[in-house]
Amino acid sequence: MQHPFDVAIALTPQGDHAFTGATHPAYANMVGPYGGITSATLLQAALMHPARLGAPIALTVNFAGPIADGPFTLEARPARTNRSTQHWQIALTQDGVVGATATAVFAERRPTWSAPEAQPPAGLPPPEAVPAAMPPDRLPWVRRYDMRFVDGGFPEPLDGLEQPQATTRVWLRDEPPRPLDFPALASVCDAFFPRVFSRRRLFSPAGTVTMTSFFHADTALLAAQGTRHVLGVARGLSYRNGYFDQSAEIWGEGGQLLASTHQMVYFRDGVPA
Amino acid sequence: MQHPFDVAIALTPQGDHAFTGATHPAYANMVGPYGGITSATLLQAALMHPARLGAPIALTVNFAGPIADGPFTLEARPARTNRSTQHWQIALTQDGVVGATATAVFAERRPTWSAPEAQPPAGLPPPEAVPAAMPPDRLPWVRRYDMRFVDGGFPEPLDGLEQPQATTRVWLRDEPPRPLDFPALASVCDAFFPRVFSRRRLFSPAGTVTMTSFFHADTALLAAQGTRHVLGVARGLSYRNGYFDQSAEIWGEGGQLLASTHQMVYFRDGVPA
Repeated sequence: MQHPFDVAIALTPQGDHAFTGATHPAYANMVGPYGGITSATLLQAALMHPARLGAPIALTVNFAGPIADGPFTLEARPARTNRSTQHWQIALTQDGVVGATATAVFAERRPTWSAPEAQPPAGLPPPEAVPAAMPPDRLPWVRRYDMRFVDGGFPEPLDGLEQPQATTRVWLRDEPPRPLDFPALASVCDAFFPRVFSRRRLFSPAGTVTMTSFFHADTALLAAQGTRHVLGVARGLSYRNGYFDQSAEIWGEGGQLLASTHQMVYFRDGVPA
Repeated sequence: MQHPFDVAIALTPQGDHAFTGATHPAYANMVGPYGGITSATLLQAALMHPARLGAPIALTVNFAGPIADGPFTLEARPARTNRSTQHWQIALTQDGVVGATATAVFAERRPTWSAPEAQPPAGLPPPEAVPAAMPPDRLPWVRRYDMRFVDGGFPEPLDGLEQPQATTRVWLRDEPPRPLDFPALASVCDAFFPRVFSRRRLFSPAGTVTMTSFFHADTALLAAQGTRHVLGVARGLSYRNGYFDQSAEIWGEGGQLLASTHQMVYFRDGVPA
């Protein structure tokens, strides 16, 4: 039986540069699909394209408008192919209306001097020592991740009491387990609830407008990760007049940085529950 | 007399969605134009477009290939316009070959709860207490910024002695002074030399492949900044097999976060001088 993730990102080629797919109920968000599965699907179009060179280095996805449950068309075009890098322009449309756009950079990596600079948080309990979060019933996509919050879980009570910061540290794994690959890594980069919920300790309308993910992992490092949990560390920098940013690192087995990801999120004022 | 920045980003509309411009010697890099001026010019196309809505929230620029000194054509298309947001796809071509692609998100901001989360570094000497760096003659664009390194200046000696980290804190201002606006903010986001130079204390071939900038400042906050120095704080997270990331914050007058910016940079191994 196929993993729901693979069903959700499955695409059918439709001639030059075009692909068709459909949203999957297992990755539904409150309205439309989870942004992470949309990102993974846009990336998948470039990965499946016969002209693809190498592996993804960077992906920017712009959530241009609501995506309706149902079929969609993707267009993925290599804008330029160099000797070791390739630049992609990708768009998702439904009935001719743009729902999302993306750009991606692919590259054939060559061995060079390599070193970490940021370090993963030290002294955290391992995933098996942290209880799995109970997902809310109304968000199907959350049930597609085993989430174990070390700290910074979904805020409660939702009493509107402003907090000084909004950091989350969480062990994450596809549910059921699935070996990590680039689409799954692109997807998990969006698995953090909006930081403004934690800062304000209230729920308010919010949605990612654009998300950029950098893939530090190459194919070998991803293969070594397998189905084990990754550690996600997310925080915000600034909240101002309807928009805030949030950044996260995705750490893998052995403390290797697999991805770093940055998004701008729209929000409206909310009221305490 | 016009500021060289305004001359460099000047565009001539050429019918629907198209603009022409040319590289400017004052913003030349070692080969082709400085990436920051390219970013500013791509953003300027959307800013000048008659269909523009609001002000920029986010800009991703992909440096697809070398840009030759001389004329170029830009195409800037609104992919989708909503009630308060607008998504752009932009491309720079020379003789029909893509040199850069970009996406941008614009928005009409509305007043909401607003708060900082990250804080600017405390206790730094003001710009007038830090000596201006002497730019190398071979990089014209560096002379278009007054750069005052608090710490993490260009590494010397270039002896190949690996350093534990690569943070730079630098006061930056257009030279000659020019009131800060969105194109100038987009440009200054790229004014940090590649972090790998500091980490390895050697010079090696390196170039930005993709850069995403988030504009936390709205038009009013930019206007309040005027011509004063901004504080740039840049660092890297991970260096691996030909690519590393670097992130920076651009802090303004009064410790307000004006922009945060993230890029992936290609590098090759170098040898000590």
